[in-house]
Amino acid sequence: MSKLPPIAFVSRGDAASEASWIATLSEAMPQENIVAFSALSGEDKRRVEIAIVANPNPADIAELTGLKWVHSLWAGVERLVAELGAGAPPLVRLVDPELSRVMAEAVLAWTYYLQRDMPAYRKQQQRKIWEELEYRHPSEMTVGLIGLGELGTASVRKLKEAGFNVIGWSRSLKSISGIDTVSADDGLSTLLRKSDIVVCLVPLTAETRGLLNSTRIAEMKHGASIINFARGPIIVADDLLGALNSGHLSHAVLDVFDVEPPPQTSPFWDRENVTVLPHISGPTSPASSARIVAANIRDWRATGKLPVTVDMQRGY
Amino acid sequence: MSKLPPIAFVSRGDAASEASWIATLSEAMPQENIVAFSALSGEDKRRVEIAIVANPNPADIAELTGLKWVHSLWAGVERLVAELGAGAPPLVRLVDPELSRVMAEAVLAWTYYLQRDMPAYRKQQQRKIWEELEYRHPSEMTVGLIGLGELGTASVRKLKEAGFNVIGWSRSLKSISGIDTVSADDGLSTLLRKSDIVVCLVPLTAETRGLLNSTRIAEMKHGASIINFARGPIIVADDLLGALNSGHLSHAVLDVFDVEPPPQTSPFWDRENVTVLPHISGPTSPASSARIVAANIRDWRATGKLPVTVDMQRGY
Repeated sequence: MSKLPPIAFVSRGDAASEASWIATLSEAMPQENIVAFSALSGEDKRRVEIAIVANPNPADIAELTGLKWVHSLWAGVERLVAELGAGAPPLVRLVDPELSRVMAEAVLAWTYYLQRDMPAYRKQQQRKIWEELEYRHPSEMTVGLIGLGELGTASVRKLKEAGFNVIGWSRSLKSISGIDTVSADDGLSTLLRKSDIVVCLVPLTAETRGLLNSTRIAEMKHGASIINFARGPIIVADDLLGALNSGHLSHAVLDVFDVEPPPQTSPFWDRENVTVLPHISGPTSPASSARIVAANIRDWRATGKLPVTVDMQRGY
Repeated sequence: MSKLPPIAFVSRGDAASEASWIATLSEAMPQENIVAFSALSGEDKRRVEIAIVANPNPADIAELTGLKWVHSLWAGVERLVAELGAGAPPLVRLVDPELSRVMAEAVLAWTYYLQRDMPAYRKQQQRKIWEELEYRHPSEMTVGLIGLGELGTASVRKLKEAGFNVIGWSRSLKSISGIDTVSADDGLSTLLRKSDIVVCLVPLTAETRGLLNSTRIAEMKHGASIINFARGPIIVADDLLGALNSGHLSHAVLDVFDVEPPPQTSPFWDRENVTVLPHISGPTSPASSARIVAANIRDWRATGKLPVTVDMQRGY
């Protein structure tokens, strides 16, 4: 038995998923004793200093009275922030360079999907129509990225390398070499007016909830498309549907929804001008995540220092 | 009037398309007098030294008795080679770096289409199924390129940059830095056995017609996919359909067909595991093509030297 207090694994996943995560995490840090919350004794619950969490029940977290910090296995922590509240122990979210790579790949892949007219050719195939659509050179197109965190920054770089014009928006102005960046309300207007494809990669916060509403969507170019790889509530669903119905927007690629999975009655399923994806743009690699969590825990054990923690006011 | 003999523009396109091409070509070489074949006088027909052609009627070419060389506006010249025959004047095909770029982009775009399971997610959407499919890292996948001419070479480089394992086949062994290359019959077997996605970019010749038949397709990995951006007859259509029906192959992206457009009765249109594209993977850019043709003609006028001409025996 390790003399260190156990690390609690807290999730609302099923037992198989929990066991699989605990095995992967234990392999990445064999010196640690990682135990599912449900298997902790009363004394263990008081001794636990670190919780590794994936959508945990906040009541479980509250039982860990000696908790010093929490490591989320996810990059997006808006739900955790809301549920744990301001009094929670320091929260570290997953910052995984592999996640940035895979997300930038998704952004490029679905940008090509739109640029190379794959949805339009699919519609033509269904109607047995053989007709060349005008090729759009990447240099003739502008892709606007909303959100310039790790994922957004990796994505704008990848799009730029592929020859697209790129414009990036963040809350406070960022400088990324070779990329046009904008910020604040008028910067967002600039991005929306210029972009043929708008990609959402901004965290969900009080400020970004409903960010793209009918007023903002109206600022977008006629015939533009939208890709949402962030969180459903960033775009007002009814306003997006209105713009797709009127033809103002030509296509939406949606990987995230207000409720996931979207209900069978969701109007998005049946639309030819919507691509519904099951939250797969940035899949977490368990092995890669476990290595990063292990390194953060090892550093804290050695130095008592934590990586950058989540600003519970700002929400990310 | 230029004192130079006119250049004949010979095509089977409609009048509007001919006029548009002649305008673009004339803009790229204002010193030349480019005239549609139908507008040439009898004396002009004897004076013409150069024909610029896009799917020309071979009988028209035969009337140009003083012809010194022919410039095709297309990269693929198998039909022209067959129709003009061995006694034809030297034939220059279009070698356009922009075409290589756009084709490599298409190869990467449709490779992502398959790697990121876009056809499978489309099927799930139609059935309102929300289910994550296992993400395949590019480093876990091998893409095999059949054909390492300008287009194939640009494509393998682009795929390699994107992190895919790449293997390239050509008739005679080529060396491309950082890329595994193979040749000959057994090299093709190696490629087919290793590749998750096989991309055809080989010219259509007597040797490559029917290259991928049931025997060759049987060598492919179970569940592999195929992309044909070359010419329809390189793959035996019935053998491909058999492999798609049996589930041996999971998907085919077909941009080219034995007959184009494919007839309404073609079994490819209705299949969920076939993506039918209207010959759009490598669209010719008229302005870019015209600049290249103009440079070749200018060099010939100045030096009497032609770029590499088509080997009429080999067919490309």
